[in-house]
Amino acid sequence: MQSINVGLLGLGTVGGGLARLLIEQHDLLGVRLGAELKLARAVDLDPGLSQGLDLPPGVFSTDAAAMLDDPAIDIVVELIGGLEPARQFVLRAINNGKHVATANKALLANHGAEIFAAARQKGVGVAFEASVAGGIPLIKTLREGLSANRVTRVLGILNGTCNYILSRMTSEGADFAGVLKAAQELGYAEADPTFDVEGIDTAHKLAIVAALVSGRHPRLADIPTQGISRLTPLDIQLAREFGYRIKLLALCRQQNGLFQARVHPALVPQGHLMASVEGPFNAVYITGDWVDEVMLYGRGAGRRPTASAVAADLMDLSRDILCGCGGRVPALGVATDGGQPLELAPLEMVSCQYYFRFTAQDQPGVLAAISRILGEHRISIEAVIQKGRQDQGPVPIVMLTHEAQEADVQKALAIIDALPVIAEPTMLIRKA
Amino acid sequence: MQSINVGLLGLGTVGGGLARLLIEQHDLLGVRLGAELKLARAVDLDPGLSQGLDLPPGVFSTDAAAMLDDPAIDIVVELIGGLEPARQFVLRAINNGKHVATANKALLANHGAEIFAAARQKGVGVAFEASVAGGIPLIKTLREGLSANRVTRVLGILNGTCNYILSRMTSEGADFAGVLKAAQELGYAEADPTFDVEGIDTAHKLAIVAALVSGRHPRLADIPTQGISRLTPLDIQLAREFGYRIKLLALCRQQNGLFQARVHPALVPQGHLMASVEGPFNAVYITGDWVDEVMLYGRGAGRRPTASAVAADLMDLSRDILCGCGGRVPALGVATDGGQPLELAPLEMVSCQYYFRFTAQDQPGVLAAISRILGEHRISIEAVIQKGRQDQGPVPIVMLTHEAQEADVQKALAIIDALPVIAEPTMLIRKA
Repeated sequence: MQSINVGLLGLGTVGGGLARLLIEQHDLLGVRLGAELKLARAVDLDPGLSQGLDLPPGVFSTDAAAMLDDPAIDIVVELIGGLEPARQFVLRAINNGKHVATANKALLANHGAEIFAAARQKGVGVAFEASVAGGIPLIKTLREGLSANRVTRVLGILNGTCNYILSRMTSEGADFAGVLKAAQELGYAEADPTFDVEGIDTAHKLAIVAALVSGRHPRLADIPTQGISRLTPLDIQLAREFGYRIKLLALCRQQNGLFQARVHPALVPQGHLMASVEGPFNAVYITGDWVDEVMLYGRGAGRRPTASAVAADLMDLSRDILCGCGGRVPALGVATDGGQPLELAPLEMVSCQYYFRFTAQDQPGVLAAISRILGEHRISIEAVIQKGRQDQGPVPIVMLTHEAQEADVQKALAIIDALPVIAEPTMLIRKA
Repeated sequence: MQSINVGLLGLGTVGGGLARLLIEQHDLLGVRLGAELKLARAVDLDPGLSQGLDLPPGVFSTDAAAMLDDPAIDIVVELIGGLEPARQFVLRAINNGKHVATANKALLANHGAEIFAAARQKGVGVAFEASVAGGIPLIKTLREGLSANRVTRVLGILNGTCNYILSRMTSEGADFAGVLKAAQELGYAEADPTFDVEGIDTAHKLAIVAALVSGRHPRLADIPTQGISRLTPLDIQLAREFGYRIKLLALCRQQNGLFQARVHPALVPQGHLMASVEGPFNAVYITGDWVDEVMLYGRGAGRRPTASAVAADLMDLSRDILCGCGGRVPALGVATDGGQPLELAPLEMVSCQYYFRFTAQDQPGVLAAISRILGEHRISIEAVIQKGRQDQGPVPIVMLTHEAQEADVQKALAIIDALPVIAEPTMLIRKA
């Protein structure tokens, strides 16, 4: 039986999981593939991480370079994360004619164009199913399953930490800081949660999704990104009174030649399936011009689901190798890549409904002043909730608008937030 | 630019849609593929069906045999449905060395083993994404996206007609016959609805799903199949009082070496995502040993979504052709097909919770008699609802059991239904 030799870089959570998968599912994968998918090398700087994995003798090594240059290795799996040395390692593997699988969203969001170009030139495949939405076969669906569609919209819940925090804030009425702390204790959030809660991780994933949808790479810095750390239990409660749930969404939309991509908390109608995605789960709601609507749902992180996605990549790459057609499906699903970056429409061109939470001194005439400024900027109000008078201090005034232009909204809020009666910057949440 | 020539058989709803897709998306598909995907022949016995499709001159024909034998045709798409002549046409195409795409679930459920064996022998691909769940990329997900998993359970809502009827029965409290009539008027149900409402269509699709999950073909006749025509608004209302929604499910489960596959109405907990799948939508909830849970959702039928799925198959087959590796992924995802049929566990071995609706004369002692018989068959009761006394005639007694064995349940119900006080055969609904 022919053998496909896998060299694994990184034995952390996902890498260790993949090593176990390749050992435990060895026979199943062999029957499906008609060849052996063999864990030939597993490399990590920390030998301690190889403990407990039951690696066959001789498989573990601390020498990445030797593995990357070993002609016996067919596929390199990069699971060390971060930009460097991951980038160097991946490029070295490609230049050595090896196929690559990676779960590294930061790497692809920043250096995807360079890596995919190198792979195209060498005729090897770069697979990255695990880089977005963990175990959910999203990359395959966008690139192959919906290959006959122009995808016009994608809504993604792509960060399990944020979704877990928002779910608990919603079910318990708890505040952000308290739930974050609980999530950290449960291992659902990192010690430094910035990357997750400020939407950066989601933006990396959206950059990859946008590239698949458009066939071109956006500049990561062009993606407007807002996290969930400023959301309060009051926002969640009032959004619910308006009929919505708040989710951190990755959103891209292709319309009239404009391409939007943005990350921010968003109002999702309570009856929409995306509103029912709870806890650490991920989901992606896709609209295509022929397929209409498709949703994928599952675990977006974790050792076993992510290993499942990487292993599916290994099966695909192996099938390509076995029939001598490396790089059979181009990384972005487009045979001819022009190399031009994807131009994103500026946020100011967005048009949607808005939720505003103004924090104002409890004085007569405030609502009139705010309403007048909004009206002057062509922003009309669908609903207002003014919560009961506080004993002292500022009070929240919450509004849901009809569809309005982001440029108008930004101008109006700048004026409103400069009013002496306004105590805090206004909270803004866009409707999905 | 290289050209892949498609010969299309059948210009009905889906076939006409595919013809339009190949014309409208011609340039997009070409850019993605790096080759032209060309509708070279479109065949139907009824020339009227070619009207309005704007087929290029010379493409339409009524001669299937000439197309099937034309060496210029690379891929044959079979969209005529039914068993014959679809089977002959597909086998003829394969024997002529052509790749095949089909949406024909009845054909594959009945003759899949023969067709896939012929394709394997000729080294061509047979693609069938559109045969189950319309636009949802379910086949690709089961076979490729989850290729590193042993799939332990699949729950499918695979028939849009049934789901539409059940959704309306639920939201309106209407009875089956009335909603069916409305569905027929709206085009959501056929004039003869038997195939859909009795679960036969769902069983065909489940046969394909079970084959993908196990790598072997079940015998269609082995799949226990029960439809929705006996469900009453009362069942739906009482199930709701117990905390459940009723859905027609295709269910397969792999456990302890036993493989179950069955189609019947089932109780789905109200908080489960599958309970929120409404109207004509389909959804599939998959459990794998590494990925944990994945759900796919979308339109399970209709001209455009189904054409989207067939066209994705054409893209896959074209990529295989372009790199000279026909049949790159085996039909069932398994390189070595033993040819042995899949043995299904008999329904009697199922163990689950049950909903019973007894229809009994309104006499003292009936509940005691039923309870005693159930107890003697190791069936314990979780909840009972006895609705208020009717003016006259029999009354419903509804129970939810703890987990019980189907064999015990069948024996107990046979005894209960023979009691003089029981007026109608007992309605049984299994929990998902």
